Amino acid sequence: MHDIPRATVGRLARYLQGLADFERPTVSSEEIAAAVGVNAAQVRRDLSYLGHQGVRGVGYDTDHLRGAIMRELGLMETVGVAIVGAGHLGQALAGYGGFLDRGFSVAGLYDVDPKKVGRSIHGYPIKHLDSMDEDARSGLFAIAIISTPAEVASDVLERLGKAGVRSILNFAPAVLRPPSSVEVRNVDLSTELQILSFYRMHRP
Amino acid sequence: MHDIPRATVGRLARYLQGLADFERPTVSSEEIAAAVGVNAAQVRRDLSYLGHQGVRGVGYDTDHLRGAIMRELGLMETVGVAIVGAGHLGQALAGYGGFLDRGFSVAGLYDVDPKKVGRSIHGYPIKHLDSMDEDARSGLFAIAIISTPAEVASDVLERLGKAGVRSILNFAPAVLRPPSSVEVRNVDLSTELQILSFYRMHRP
Repeated sequence: MHDIPRATVGRLARYLQGLADFERPTVSSEEIAAAVGVNAAQVRRDLSYLGHQGVRGVGYDTDHLRGAIMRELGLMETVGVAIVGAGHLGQALAGYGGFLDRGFSVAGLYDVDPKKVGRSIHGYPIKHLDSMDEDARSGLFAIAIISTPAEVASDVLERLGKAGVRSILNFAPAVLRPPSSVEVRNVDLSTELQILSFYRMHRP
Repeated sequence: MHDIPRATVGRLARYLQGLADFERPTVSSEEIAAAVGVNAAQVRRDLSYLGHQGVRGVGYDTDHLRGAIMRELGLMETVGVAIVGAGHLGQALAGYGGFLDRGFSVAGLYDVDPKKVGRSIHGYPIKHLDSMDEDARSGLFAIAIISTPAEVASDVLERLGKAGVRSILNFAPAVLRPPSSVEVRNVDLSTELQILSFYRMHRP
């Protein structure tokens, strides 16, 4: 199971979203493919990594398949997520329902600004950064979102890594160098816009 | 120039960021590589698409290189960006300085909520969605960020496409099917977290 290709992991998450609103008891690879915009052969290949083969002419048992993907992605229990940096972006992420109903819960926000610490945002407490390490060690969260200014993102990453957090989503426009035990995924808005700018110029 | 591989386009945007704080008049491929975390041979190959060859033992002229990348990415003039959907996320994006100093300006936010329309966020007006199409046609913006609820994202995409917007950054957790003339890049927070959840479980 550990040998699932990275691209397959990404698509499994998308299949799970495609299946979220699907109500019939069986689903075909073609239907999944149409919901997420890949081809059906790719869907079948990806799902075979889970040991799931559809029945020809019938498809997959929808509930079983959903469960198998959730198990594989570690989503059978709610996963705590910390938001480090309670500025505009951190606060927006705390209030953004789009991911919170998919197996994740906000364990808290962390900041150093005395005007923010002690307040709540969307019902979630803003705590001082000093309590982050202890909260991570005690298992309050397993995934951290870095939404700090770029200058401090590396320090935050290092502290999270030392506290045993191995999964990080980075929004700070900084290049992070995680140790191999830590997985960092970067969401870099300016890079995305610059790429879009290129296609604006060069698309036929 | 139109034949630059997609992966190279993404890396050019990262090189530009790596060069942002670089103050010496020449820069080597090794220095660029170190700043963004790729290898130097890759940097040289990517930059050769711009017709730029470094001088052996000297490197690249920093300013020329920065200019060449900006030209290639269409960033010589400020590019107007519309934010469609003025909820928490849209408002956060409007206030997020991280990308606004890199050649982009917020042309405005659009929403349908009468409580929001007419107000300003971080100095940017929130306009009614009905004025979006006309603003796009008149060239007020060339890139749009969709931060609406998932249910309306497809409609917004279609309207933007008809109004001539060909570059879209989508934050709505919806699978969009753009025509081939429109480039959509998706930032899907729940998918990112689900991928991280997998690595949390399966990392050695």
